[in-house]
Amino acid sequence: MSRMSSSTAGVGPVRLGPQARAALRPTEAPAVTGGFWYDRRVINAQVCIPQGPRLLESAGNLHNLRLVAGETEGAFRGDYPFQDTDVYKWLEAASWQLAQDAVAGRDTGALNAEVDRITALVAAAQQEDGYLNTWCQSGRGDGRYSDLRWGHELYNAGHLIQAAIAHHRATGRTELLDVARRFADHIGTVFGPAGSGRPIDGFDAHPEVETALAELYRETGDRHYLDLARYFVDRHGHGLHGHEAYCQDRVPLREAETVEGHAVRQLYLLAAAADLAIETGDESLAAAGVRLWHAMAATKTHLTGGVGAHHEEEDFGDPYELPTERAYCETCAAVASIQFGWRMALLTGQARYSDLIERTLFNGFLAGMSLDGESWLYVNPLQVRDGHVDEGGDKSSRRTRWFRCACCPPNVMRLLAGLEHYFASTDGRGLQIHQYASGVFHGEADGAPLNVSVNTDYPWRGRTAVTVERTPGTPWTLSLRIPQWCTEYALGGVATDAEVQDGWLRIHRSWTTGDEVVLDLDLAPRLVSADSRVDAVRGCVAIERGPLVYCLEQADHPGGGLDDVVIDAAGPLTVKERPDLLGGVVTIGGTGYRRSLPEPGWWPYVPAGSSQAPGTPLELVAVPYHAWANRAVGSMRVWLPTS
Amino acid sequence: MSRMSSSTAGVGPVRLGPQARAALRPTEAPAVTGGFWYDRRVINAQVCIPQGPRLLESAGNLHNLRLVAGETEGAFRGDYPFQDTDVYKWLEAASWQLAQDAVAGRDTGALNAEVDRITALVAAAQQEDGYLNTWCQSGRGDGRYSDLRWGHELYNAGHLIQAAIAHHRATGRTELLDVARRFADHIGTVFGPAGSGRPIDGFDAHPEVETALAELYRETGDRHYLDLARYFVDRHGHGLHGHEAYCQDRVPLREAETVEGHAVRQLYLLAAAADLAIETGDESLAAAGVRLWHAMAATKTHLTGGVGAHHEEEDFGDPYELPTERAYCETCAAVASIQFGWRMALLTGQARYSDLIERTLFNGFLAGMSLDGESWLYVNPLQVRDGHVDEGGDKSSRRTRWFRCACCPPNVMRLLAGLEHYFASTDGRGLQIHQYASGVFHGEADGAPLNVSVNTDYPWRGRTAVTVERTPGTPWTLSLRIPQWCTEYALGGVATDAEVQDGWLRIHRSWTTGDEVVLDLDLAPRLVSADSRVDAVRGCVAIERGPLVYCLEQADHPGGGLDDVVIDAAGPLTVKERPDLLGGVVTIGGTGYRRSLPEPGWWPYVPAGSSQAPGTPLELVAVPYHAWANRAVGSMRVWLPTS
Repeated sequence: MSRMSSSTAGVGPVRLGPQARAALRPTEAPAVTGGFWYDRRVINAQVCIPQGPRLLESAGNLHNLRLVAGETEGAFRGDYPFQDTDVYKWLEAASWQLAQDAVAGRDTGALNAEVDRITALVAAAQQEDGYLNTWCQSGRGDGRYSDLRWGHELYNAGHLIQAAIAHHRATGRTELLDVARRFADHIGTVFGPAGSGRPIDGFDAHPEVETALAELYRETGDRHYLDLARYFVDRHGHGLHGHEAYCQDRVPLREAETVEGHAVRQLYLLAAAADLAIETGDESLAAAGVRLWHAMAATKTHLTGGVGAHHEEEDFGDPYELPTERAYCETCAAVASIQFGWRMALLTGQARYSDLIERTLFNGFLAGMSLDGESWLYVNPLQVRDGHVDEGGDKSSRRTRWFRCACCPPNVMRLLAGLEHYFASTDGRGLQIHQYASGVFHGEADGAPLNVSVNTDYPWRGRTAVTVERTPGTPWTLSLRIPQWCTEYALGGVATDAEVQDGWLRIHRSWTTGDEVVLDLDLAPRLVSADSRVDAVRGCVAIERGPLVYCLEQADHPGGGLDDVVIDAAGPLTVKERPDLLGGVVTIGGTGYRRSLPEPGWWPYVPAGSSQAPGTPLELVAVPYHAWANRAVGSMRVWLPTS
Repeated sequence: MSRMSSSTAGVGPVRLGPQARAALRPTEAPAVTGGFWYDRRVINAQVCIPQGPRLLESAGNLHNLRLVAGETEGAFRGDYPFQDTDVYKWLEAASWQLAQDAVAGRDTGALNAEVDRITALVAAAQQEDGYLNTWCQSGRGDGRYSDLRWGHELYNAGHLIQAAIAHHRATGRTELLDVARRFADHIGTVFGPAGSGRPIDGFDAHPEVETALAELYRETGDRHYLDLARYFVDRHGHGLHGHEAYCQDRVPLREAETVEGHAVRQLYLLAAAADLAIETGDESLAAAGVRLWHAMAATKTHLTGGVGAHHEEEDFGDPYELPTERAYCETCAAVASIQFGWRMALLTGQARYSDLIERTLFNGFLAGMSLDGESWLYVNPLQVRDGHVDEGGDKSSRRTRWFRCACCPPNVMRLLAGLEHYFASTDGRGLQIHQYASGVFHGEADGAPLNVSVNTDYPWRGRTAVTVERTPGTPWTLSLRIPQWCTEYALGGVATDAEVQDGWLRIHRSWTTGDEVVLDLDLAPRLVSADSRVDAVRGCVAIERGPLVYCLEQADHPGGGLDDVVIDAAGPLTVKERPDLLGGVVTIGGTGYRRSLPEPGWWPYVPAGSSQAPGTPLELVAVPYHAWANRAVGSMRVWLPTS
């Protein structure tokens, strides 16, 4: 804590630049102090992050750094040119954790020491001219920048830069930032438009360095980094990678009509576009961000917030192509969607971006980590069939201790470790609460600081109390997001009246310390159905409660599988607190039946209108989707047939 | 024709061995002389096969042979170690075509010359010890048999053997057969169980050589080939390829409960298992064939007969996982399903195997070739969405002139060229008609030859006349398959009464030359729905008529896409002969509507029971699925929502 400079403490994953043109700004030093996310972050802090170095050791990532640092001998270990990023993402996670620990006054000694040790290793691995990539330095591949399609060198650099910024913000120290700047400066000498005198006019087919460079500009004030980010973003879509959608090269973002290609690549690129729109006021990039986000949300997002319909090429599918059992919904794509969405929320001030962030956080993202923090999912399907054959491996529907391609686990760690930064913002005239979690959030009104404390058992209970802890004398606006899923709410406390504005509840008044506002969101469970263009779930409903998507698991329905289960959509839904189950969840009960399906005939297609044998009544027990796959291996389904 | 030995003329893709224990035997010298398949085979003979050598030249396959034959210089061209098989499959197709032409008395000079030229090239490329693989011989890969998982060397050998058998049967000549035997003999010196003294105990992860070796035994009478086939089949499933389903190594066939892994690999292996069951009486392999075929047909086959639910790994999916837009349904997998099914039909005598062959031929297989024979589909989806982004390439839903991985086109050519051999059989007590096509089919009763001529406009019209052309004096049984889709039929002519036996109509009587039997299958169009476990098409119906599956194409529904089209399942279906359309088809008209879908909101999931705007009436025009994608690029769908 002593090492932390107060000027940087707690400034999170996005910090706007001095000329930024955004509707909202992230708040300084937010803190989550209890409740749902606090508990998940305790697991992250006590299980996931501490285990990181050991897992990176056994997977070979640290060996590879030592190898090119000349500290050991042997060959590169692992199969991928992007393995350094696992280390960088862990360093970023650990750094945000250090910031949190510092704010909370917890001892940071052990973690700091691990971070220092690995930072030193990274620094030792860097080459004289700033280049750093263990795959290439150890002789794999065909040499520096020879394979921009698959080499991932700038993608590696991007994650290094993001880790370094986190480390600098958390500790005020510059060891890792110096390494990152040297690499960024080196990249700036290599890449540039034809005629610039720089040898390569091109870009890495896996975006990431772009948004990292934008943030490096914010951290250092050096505008060259922003210019380099803009150069890279603008080179996409002109055929340098054969106009392949996979490489984010089919069309320029400014002309694109929808999200396409590899989901993570698309969303990291869009995060950078939003950064550039914020920092430079580029209106056509801002418009592209709005347009593509809407195309994604309206036509290519699963109910869980997960994105990516194809296993092959980890690709967004066509509009409304949203399969259940083959939903790809990579955990990293959920992270990327949240990162893009948050930048759009800041840029536009609109609530809907945080609506989707909430949905993604509680469902498609959180499902990626086991309840105990010990194992992971890479893909997050919405259905696992009876008789599913699972051979294990990275794309398994069983949780796995670590992956051969281990991009997701440290990505979850870094997002969780800095999560409080996605929860509130200020527009300079008050405070906006985007996500409901117990904690302290700071804002600003006409240059004066203010802060509130939030108390809630969300998402299990709908009541959130916001207490003004510090306030200037002049009136300001407290904005509370009314989630898109919510149709009934009540406002109480000192304010019972408020303006409703496009998803925001705006409470404008003169505040006194101790003023409490109580927002009560109705958490009655509900059934939802999909737009009829979503062919995959026709004739089905899904159960939701608050921001949580629910699913059936085989473990709660003994005596059969789930392929033959039907829900009575007119039946009652009952809510039950189950502190004993899955670390403490609220389950939803429903009524339905199990079809009396005949033994399969030899051919599964029959004359339309064939009568169906009635089923036997069945009590349905739905659990939160994010908690699935934490018990015995079995089938699961989110979408339930109604007949 | 002069070169054709009468003893081999027209003996098709499967010829049983002298000790075979099968219910049925293929018939000798069948001929298709008119009608639907005749027309498709004219295209095959006049467009596809003649163009083959030029396409193989431009793709590099012939260059690769010349390269290793020392007739040219340079490097291997192409990306795959199995490119020789494109040449072999073309040689097989050309050979069956030669046999057909010979039977029909057509001039075979030009095609014979091409076959001779390419056969000489193959012979020149073979190494002294019999080994032949241009990938490996040209220095690609790590040397002979170093990569049995991906090297495809025995897969190459299998197709060489099959081509050689076809050539030998068609022409009586042995040039290609000698090459194939040398390679097969070489393989026999290399592969064998531990302790056999042969250096490698293993198998090629892409089956094909197994069924080819079984046929080579049939062709040569040399039992070593059958033993080698059995050795390879039995080595699957014991972990030599890490128990990977993709490599057909998860479990031995005798223990497998369902088809799994790469669809073509699975089905070629099962074809070999059926061959072994036929030739050796192996009951557990026969049982595996029955069990796995039924698991495939009941739970893993699309309405079109296509198989393969996953693009990734070209894999069978889980039971009832049968997506529409991502149906893989590789054209080669349709070929493999037909080959496996025919062997099972011979083994068991049951009609259902030919039911599925019929469905696959008319739909999932035939869709792979354009109407003009100039372009191809590798994958055969059941839906192309409005707004589908298609970047071209092998897996495109647009037809392509030739593929980078060009396995499918010559596979279609070889199956079409020998197709008549799948149409009839004899059990020694008469004749079984499996598929309805105009032509002449031979059988046998108590050792005496018999034959019939068949006259039909099937599948456009339901009437088939069978006329006895030659008959012994003793009674025998004419068996006509009543297709599984058929619920109404009439029998006329000399026989109006018959025994119905598990899909066969058995007409046992004393026959006189000129006797005519008329079978009239009711071709009223019908709607079918899927087993409720097929989640992907819940709430949908498909249109069928006779053996044909129909689809909607955008071209017939101007003014909008197909994502918003609904069929009125209670409305009438009308039949229209359209000689002007798609080379002459019967279309089915239906009534439906186009939903008045709102502009997409930002989120596609809504409270269940939300009301839907009514639609505008729409005349639906359905065309045969096999004829889709022969007009302007656009959306297509087989399964139609009913509300």
